[in-house]
Amino acid sequence: MTQSPRVPRIVDNDYTRDAADMRRAFASERTGAELKHVASGTIDPATLPGNIENFFGVAQVPMGLAGPIRINGEHAQGDFYVPLATTEGTLVASYNRGMRLLGEAGGVKTTVVERYMQRAPVFHFSDAREARAFGEWVEANIDAIREVAEGTTSVGKLHHVQRFNVAQMCFLRFNYETGDAAGQNMSGKATYAACEWIKANAPMAERYTLSGAIDTDKKHSQMNMMHSRGARVVAEAVIPDQLMRDLMGPSTAAMFRGRLVSNVGGMLSGTVNNGMHSANGLTALFIATGQDVANIAESHAAMTFVELLENGDYYWSITIPSLIVATYGGGTGLATQRECLELLGCYGKGKVEKFAEICAATVLAGEISLAAAVLHGDWVSSHDKYGRNRP
Amino acid sequence: MTQSPRVPRIVDNDYTRDAADMRRAFASERTGAELKHVASGTIDPATLPGNIENFFGVAQVPMGLAGPIRINGEHAQGDFYVPLATTEGTLVASYNRGMRLLGEAGGVKTTVVERYMQRAPVFHFSDAREARAFGEWVEANIDAIREVAEGTTSVGKLHHVQRFNVAQMCFLRFNYETGDAAGQNMSGKATYAACEWIKANAPMAERYTLSGAIDTDKKHSQMNMMHSRGARVVAEAVIPDQLMRDLMGPSTAAMFRGRLVSNVGGMLSGTVNNGMHSANGLTALFIATGQDVANIAESHAAMTFVELLENGDYYWSITIPSLIVATYGGGTGLATQRECLELLGCYGKGKVEKFAEICAATVLAGEISLAAAVLHGDWVSSHDKYGRNRP
Amino acid sequence: MTQSPRVPRIVDNDYTRDAADMRRAFASERTGAELKHVASGTIDPATLPGNIENFFGVAQVPMGLAGPIRINGEHAQGDFYVPLATTEGTLVASYNRGMRLLGEAGGVKTTVVERYMQRAPVFHFSDAREARAFGEWVEANIDAIREVAEGTTSVGKLHHVQRFNVAQMCFLRFNYETGDAAGQNMSGKATYAACEWIKANAPMAERYTLSGAIDTDKKHSQMNMMHSRGARVVAEAVIPDQLMRDLMGPSTAAMFRGRLVSNVGGMLSGTVNNGMHSANGLTALFIATGQDVANIAESHAAMTFVELLENGDYYWSITIPSLIVATYGGGTGLATQRECLELLGCYGKGKVEKFAEICAATVLAGEISLAAAVLHGDWVSSHDKYGRNRP
Amino acid sequence: MTQSPRVPRIVDNDYTRDAADMRRAFASERTGAELKHVASGTIDPATLPGNIENFFGVAQVPMGLAGPIRINGEHAQGDFYVPLATTEGTLVASYNRGMRLLGEAGGVKTTVVERYMQRAPVFHFSDAREARAFGEWVEANIDAIREVAEGTTSVGKLHHVQRFNVAQMCFLRFNYETGDAAGQNMSGKATYAACEWIKANAPMAERYTLSGAIDTDKKHSQMNMMHSRGARVVAEAVIPDQLMRDLMGPSTAAMFRGRLVSNVGGMLSGTVNNGMHSANGLTALFIATGQDVANIAESHAAMTFVELLENGDYYWSITIPSLIVATYGGGTGLATQRECLELLGCYGKGKVEKFAEICAATVLAGEISLAAAVLHGDWVSSHDKYGRNRP
Repeated sequence: MTQSPRVPRIVDNDYTRDAADMRRAFASERTGAELKHVASGTIDPATLPGNIENFFGVAQVPMGLAGPIRINGEHAQGDFYVPLATTEGTLVASYNRGMRLLGEAGGVKTTVVERYMQRAPVFHFSDAREARAFGEWVEANIDAIREVAEGTTSVGKLHHVQRFNVAQMCFLRFNYETGDAAGQNMSGKATYAACEWIKANAPMAERYTLSGAIDTDKKHSQMNMMHSRGARVVAEAVIPDQLMRDLMGPSTAAMFRGRLVSNVGGMLSGTVNNGMHSANGLTALFIATGQDVANIAESHAAMTFVELLENGDYYWSITIPSLIVATYGGGTGLATQRECLELLGCYGKGKVEKFAEICAATVLAGEISLAAAVLHGDWVSSHDKYGRNRP
Repeated sequence: MTQSPRVPRIVDNDYTRDAADMRRAFASERTGAELKHVASGTIDPATLPGNIENFFGVAQVPMGLAGPIRINGEHAQGDFYVPLATTEGTLVASYNRGMRLLGEAGGVKTTVVERYMQRAPVFHFSDAREARAFGEWVEANIDAIREVAEGTTSVGKLHHVQRFNVAQMCFLRFNYETGDAAGQNMSGKATYAACEWIKANAPMAERYTLSGAIDTDKKHSQMNMMHSRGARVVAEAVIPDQLMRDLMGPSTAAMFRGRLVSNVGGMLSGTVNNGMHSANGLTALFIATGQDVANIAESHAAMTFVELLENGDYYWSITIPSLIVATYGGGTGLATQRECLELLGCYGKGKVEKFAEICAATVLAGEISLAAAVLHGDWVSSHDKYGRNRP
Repeated sequence: MTQSPRVPRIVDNDYTRDAADMRRAFASERTGAELKHVASGTIDPATLPGNIENFFGVAQVPMGLAGPIRINGEHAQGDFYVPLATTEGTLVASYNRGMRLLGEAGGVKTTVVERYMQRAPVFHFSDAREARAFGEWVEANIDAIREVAEGTTSVGKLHHVQRFNVAQMCFLRFNYETGDAAGQNMSGKATYAACEWIKANAPMAERYTLSGAIDTDKKHSQMNMMHSRGARVVAEAVIPDQLMRDLMGPSTAAMFRGRLVSNVGGMLSGTVNNGMHSANGLTALFIATGQDVANIAESHAAMTFVELLENGDYYWSITIPSLIVATYGGGTGLATQRECLELLGCYGKGKVEKFAEICAATVLAGEISLAAAVLHGDWVSSHDKYGRNRP
Repeated sequence: MTQSPRVPRIVDNDYTRDAADMRRAFASERTGAELKHVASGTIDPATLPGNIENFFGVAQVPMGLAGPIRINGEHAQGDFYVPLATTEGTLVASYNRGMRLLGEAGGVKTTVVERYMQRAPVFHFSDAREARAFGEWVEANIDAIREVAEGTTSVGKLHHVQRFNVAQMCFLRFNYETGDAAGQNMSGKATYAACEWIKANAPMAERYTLSGAIDTDKKHSQMNMMHSRGARVVAEAVIPDQLMRDLMGPSTAAMFRGRLVSNVGGMLSGTVNNGMHSANGLTALFIATGQDVANIAESHAAMTFVELLENGDYYWSITIPSLIVATYGGGTGLATQRECLELLGCYGKGKVEKFAEICAATVLAGEISLAAAVLHGDWVSSHDKYGRNRP
């Protein structure tokens, strides 16, 4: 079997409608597929360098509007209408329902505890003692390392460097403050410069790998659960029993009992999220607002903590340890993505904590709604009504 | 602070352009945001019931075309052009590069090992002995349970039910074959019917919860790693040393050494994927083809296994234990999504294994490309060239 | 530096007091250490073949007696005095305290849910498809495999074989019922025979490794948490609020609140036991009764599940998924070990479930006592009184 | 059923032979068990306060002598004879075999990377913001906290305090240097004092729990894997291929291939130790030398990292992140335990790093021996020869 021709890379005018047309024509010719809707986007290809290669069209993902969700954050304050891009029936309705409950309960309190982006190289030595000595050298030279790292970026600040020794290796985990960008590339570039400097200056540091797999980029890890990757955000609310019954059906006591069971199920299955489905709301928000959607891998981890108060009120919190978001750079400036960020008042610089708070509050709304549905037995029936179970 | 008005739900004609217009107008009026591009989609709202509520427009996600990737699968055979919807610069170029390498190496062998969708209820008893007896009752009555479950669906087949006892609870995990649909709703509905029947017939089975948190839906778990959720797919390839050097830079021996380090880093950090970044390719493919993108939470888990053969060739495999995909139902039939599935020859019934194989092969291409880039030191420089590091 | 002479292996009369004397003399001569107490044991060396090599003396571990603990088991019924071998001050007193509370609460209900021992080989193939076909072959030939495996043992029964595919490998996990022995060696021998037979009969099964690391022998794993290794045992009790306050200090409500926090701490730290310190009681019981103490690695895993009942009573359960114990074989027949098993009415055949129930009940006693101490603030002061904090 | 009488606590002369006699008589009278060997110990009860309560006799655990093992440590240098207390046939022989190999390969290089003991309280607040502010307060007041903590101990030094926020809680993890003691009690006492001071001085710090379950005491956790608990020790060796073949059978290349498979099996099963059976050697050493054997829960975790060098030599390392050992305090001073520590030149102050190095080197010997046995197919046959498989 001879090899098929590769997708053409157009010299000079790669980011034009013509180039996209050519690629669609090529693909249709090779596969027989008609690419009509894919061609229909209103994005100007000239805005796309840095976001995509081999551009040939757009995916249109339908969006539903949920809300408002009332947020009593430090950065997000007031009522927000949340754009959710998804193709899963029930999702928007379910988050919307949770938002209503939270609003009537007085809103969601949100807190960004900390926010860093990482790059984690590993240095290799001839034995464990050299690796240990190297770790001490890094600690002693941290100021110089910081200066080199920060020299590569006008925004990023190297906050701290963690060290972990295994065998003859010393793993470093560089933690950066990255402004309103998610910061993966910024962190990579700064750490590369730091490593090159370390290699040139540290005794015996002759060999390193820029990623030693503990970053952990585009994948969940317990490391992230403990030490955050992106924003560590908490959303909290207190829900009166009567309100829960009126809007959702189950009592707060029933909800609480269900939570105890989920905790055990979570431990039994070894899950990374003892809550319900944070991935649903976050993914829909990420697609709508131009986030790096692959970061759902990290961002979907969560720790739910609840208390049934003596008066029957229900304290519900969710801690998202690795929420990776941006309001600047990446896909945030593209046509529909920017509009959706503007809908939230979150486009551009100085908005990333606000957006992180909106994400966390949205997640909390979805947790409550789904948990109540599972307990109330209307989970299946609602999918029959809104979703693809319909005959 | 008074509550803001909620997003209007339009009676009778909810899935029309007018309804979407009204919602955008409402949102713009409340927030001041202009929603021009969001309005530009070519999706017919009449096609959207079951996929979205409160529809108000579309997210346009730019797509790049990668490939071809040569696949020697059981279902996918030949050269495929892969649509990747992303806003992250370098991603398409990187996967494209890996696809070229794999093609020149003879292609990717892909295998779907098994494929099930789950719903996992928990039954509550007064003590551990009742829970144990209940488990035995379920095993003895499995045929009747199957009949009830399968009575709710024309497609789904109940393959097997797993049991796990903790305290006075018996967790069941129903595993269904779901045809070309991902099958979450189908599984939920069938399991609900089964549970109601069990409750009516099993001694002492008075209380259950439809999800006991071991499903584990929209979140990673070790349960999934072991027992699959969706498709368990393997992609394998053998790459000659000279080819690796010519196209990627590093030797296969260097790649192999790097892999050993990643295994340790993975264990140290407690990650769910000892590979590189499967989430990147999968997310881009999922958005393009109308998958439930939130399932990246489960689908990004992976186990990489490699061997450096005596002749210097490099055997590289990736096992994705929880790849949740569909070629029918959900978002697969929407305008651009269907076109992208057709581009792969994967739209409609009887195509889901083929699509799963394409996903796995694509992931493998990305693994090799990124691993080589990290080792070769062109990781940062390529982001400078293609990505958002540019000044 | 020349190599020192190795510990002498005595031909013909290796298991005699003379041989032990010679080894102690050798050791003293080489190191200058006096080995007086080590020499004082009353074990007859002639009883030791199969338990130790290079025998040179005994470790004397002091034992405290706790109890009685009242157990309402299926196998253990009544009041038991529990021998605990430890050198950690406070331990016996703490378990003793918990036993008193449980007795006054009416005793502990114990249940052995299931009990298997494992050996888990891995078979290697040239690709994932062969591995998948092999798994199907194993399922089709399970009866013949069982016959071969069981042919090696008069006691062991092959209950079921689990399969897990990764890359071009098929991992099998053989689960045996092993009578009153822990059964690791029995399982190893039977599985070895089965594998040799499989290798001779299954197409393409040319290469296997007797352990593919998922057994997981002498180490904790999530596999054990889900699928048991040794006995899966549950201990349950209901404790009245007033009794808890009278004997322990804290109210049941306070204990319950503390538990919610421990669940979160457990998830944050990624622990394998969301309880307090089951390893303490189990280790002390294991040493006293001749268990394979290294199995604490597996046996210390546990899942605590509690409920605060409406009347203020506190339902407390602990599920130990991997309790590896024996009342026959191994070290159970040695001098002091047998006496301690007899103290519990657990020596010899037909007693292993009884002993497993006593272990679980003991663990529960320790959980309650320590949890109350931590909350009541007498944790530090009791260590001052009983332990090594004393000035 | 009336309650049986509790084990008598003897006033005034609790730690005498008479008291032990009385308890044995009591136990025999209640159970019918003869406790002859249990009575035979040579420990003076007067030495036991602080180690045991309700003392009634001793467990005699047979010990085998292995070695010498040649260690090129920073603290342990030379050839050591290692006492192993176990009842598991084959264990001593297997470790002994590995020690011989390592000796002929030039010995084991050992390195203590760091060593801390922890206590980890959690402080509760009314919301996540207070918890965050509290964490900052702790950082700002660390010197005062250290002074209070260290005021409770003549040995312990508070090295650093880690912080982790979840919901409205701030978990602190105090890390102490504890001299030659394991230090759990010392750490608990110092942290209690620190917490009381914090409670009195920090704004809003009204409620705390002395353990928030992330310590994680007597249980494994990923926290320990990353951040050490007790000593983080590495043992390394390089083994020539010919030597491996001559003494063990398999080639280094075969050993290496087996290791790759174990890594995958480890990830599949979610294990905490990708090596073979460190729990075996450590448990036997811990019993022999008066360690807190329950700490096998933490100490058995390990990360194996190997490389097959170009000349066929095999670099083998094991990193034990949570080796909890002492040479002073606890059970180290008891009769046989002290003799065994003296046999290793490790009794008393200033010896704990030396002992940690011996532990790690011993573990490495056992890893190699068992790995070779599994591959060589003599695993089962050696248990037939030495162990309880004999007919």
